[in-house]
Amino acid sequence: MIVVVTPNPAVDVTYRVAEQRIGETQRVLDVARHPGGKGLNVGRVLAATGVATHAVLPLGETPGRWISDALDRLGLDHTDVVVSGTTRTTVTVVDDIAHPTMFGEPGPVLTAVEWDAVATAVGGLLADADTTALVVSGSLPSGTAPVVVASWVATAHGHGVLSVVDCSGAALLAAASAGATVCKPNREELLEATGATDERAGALRLLELGAGVVVVSRGAHGIAAHTADHVLEVPAVPGVSGNPTGAGDAATAGLVGALVGAGTRQGPGAPFADDTLLRALRSAAAHGAAAVLRPVAGEVDPADVHRFLTHPDRTRTPA
Amino acid sequence: MIVVVTPNPAVDVTYRVAEQRIGETQRVLDVARHPGGKGLNVGRVLAATGVATHAVLPLGETPGRWISDALDRLGLDHTDVVVSGTTRTTVTVVDDIAHPTMFGEPGPVLTAVEWDAVATAVGGLLADADTTALVVSGSLPSGTAPVVVASWVATAHGHGVLSVVDCSGAALLAAASAGATVCKPNREELLEATGATDERAGALRLLELGAGVVVVSRGAHGIAAHTADHVLEVPAVPGVSGNPTGAGDAATAGLVGALVGAGTRQGPGAPFADDTLLRALRSAAAHGAAAVLRPVAGEVDPADVHRFLTHPDRTRTPA
Repeated sequence: MIVVVTPNPAVDVTYRVAEQRIGETQRVLDVARHPGGKGLNVGRVLAATGVATHAVLPLGETPGRWISDALDRLGLDHTDVVVSGTTRTTVTVVDDIAHPTMFGEPGPVLTAVEWDAVATAVGGLLADADTTALVVSGSLPSGTAPVVVASWVATAHGHGVLSVVDCSGAALLAAASAGATVCKPNREELLEATGATDERAGALRLLELGAGVVVVSRGAHGIAAHTADHVLEVPAVPGVSGNPTGAGDAATAGLVGALVGAGTRQGPGAPFADDTLLRALRSAAAHGAAAVLRPVAGEVDPADVHRFLTHPDRTRTPA
Repeated sequence: MIVVVTPNPAVDVTYRVAEQRIGETQRVLDVARHPGGKGLNVGRVLAATGVATHAVLPLGETPGRWISDALDRLGLDHTDVVVSGTTRTTVTVVDDIAHPTMFGEPGPVLTAVEWDAVATAVGGLLADADTTALVVSGSLPSGTAPVVVASWVATAHGHGVLSVVDCSGAALLAAASAGATVCKPNREELLEATGATDERAGALRLLELGAGVVVVSRGAHGIAAHTADHVLEVPAVPGVSGNPTGAGDAATAGLVGALVGAGTRQGPGAPFADDTLLRALRSAAAHGAAAVLRPVAGEVDPADVHRFLTHPDRTRTPA
């Protein structure tokens, strides 16, 4: 089982309108609502591809209850930590003319007691002998001390469970310092968090802090794994176009699914063999490409994943 | 008790952003959520001014449950008719630069069985000896036969209860045809529903259909009551500026509150004396002005209403 923590889940609402205009009343032609937040996308992709997963998330007020009900409908196992604030909603307005406009609510501020309750829930699941990995993915609610992520990573390692962290900013640095098995930012997040001007320098900074390996997703430019002495790269699946939202989360799902293999535990600190990392990068690229083909983040067709995995000649390994 | 029906309630969400821009991700600086729909605004203003009121509304899914909980918190008596569709949300985006942008969801389509359940709830409340008026206010969900409004009006009159209808389009015409005691559109709604090019002609059309009196709110230009042979007018309270959203609903509350007086039943078909109508128009103007002073629709400060009611020299009665 892979435990997936979403620190700041969201109700993702998409409004289709005829044409976006400022200062007018616009009739919404179509409404879609999905449970969102990067961790939930990771968990849904894992579940869609048959990997046992369990989501942990703080949820508050009506939007929180909606997410809980939606996860039940999707059949995703989840532990809700009920908080007093209101879970955020994001509203994305789309038409066929302009780029989408996204309105992001700030989300709740959690109390120390509420974060303790999240840690207790995470700790209980990590103690389960079936748990093979911890994934932490997505932003932290504003005002959250990054140490919460470090503490989950430390708890995982205490149970011999590997950790994969896709956060940004101070939370990413805290995860690296805690020795996260894999830090998996995208390129922009890596540069922003480390202050580096190129990807290799940024990855080395996280490795110096303590990260086991740094995997950087580059969108259409593929995905790379950085260790202290070399870089492994896999290009993106060519010729795939569609909706890139959530492709990075699907890549995380593909990565962690491959790393834990068929459920066997791998020590959190053990260095991965190159062929293991390459297999995980190929899996990440295939999952990411499959996600691009779906209109909604957090979804893949397992047949697409399989097709892209068996696609030949997509690997190169520069030094 | 005044029974207020809101055929198409909404969760009214307001997002404040720094500057509205199309095609960008915008951080929401402040979120406000209120139970919305014109009837709920009317009911909340009545309750705020100490008038016993009972709201009837179809509610569906999570947004419907949110409205029900919010009305409980506000202390407004309400009967929910649970429907299978999803109650609509409206999102209004505001900044200090441009006009607000409003996104309106279409709202649920109710089945005939669900409308029957609404009629049963309305009928039960109208049969209560304490009920003095029926108010129907706001749009109908798309696909609704206007006859539902006519049937509530007929039921009210069967119980000797007067009716005030603030709807638009075919629903307004249906209410007039059913002999609504008061039809209370705003000027634009009146012209649009009747196809008339001036207010008097539009009002006469509704009176010919069967309306007892037609009260037309004109925003900053006051409010008028049309009967077959004359027009009574009261100007808006001068020098009041603020948020006009919901002012028309507050005017409806002030109007019906004055018409039913201190809880005595007035026959639905009885013509009102001119002084009764003038008192009701003054009450409507005072409530509307008080609503303009509040940032949120559906709210008034009773002290403001009292102050505007006692303001002298605001009445003229052209022929």
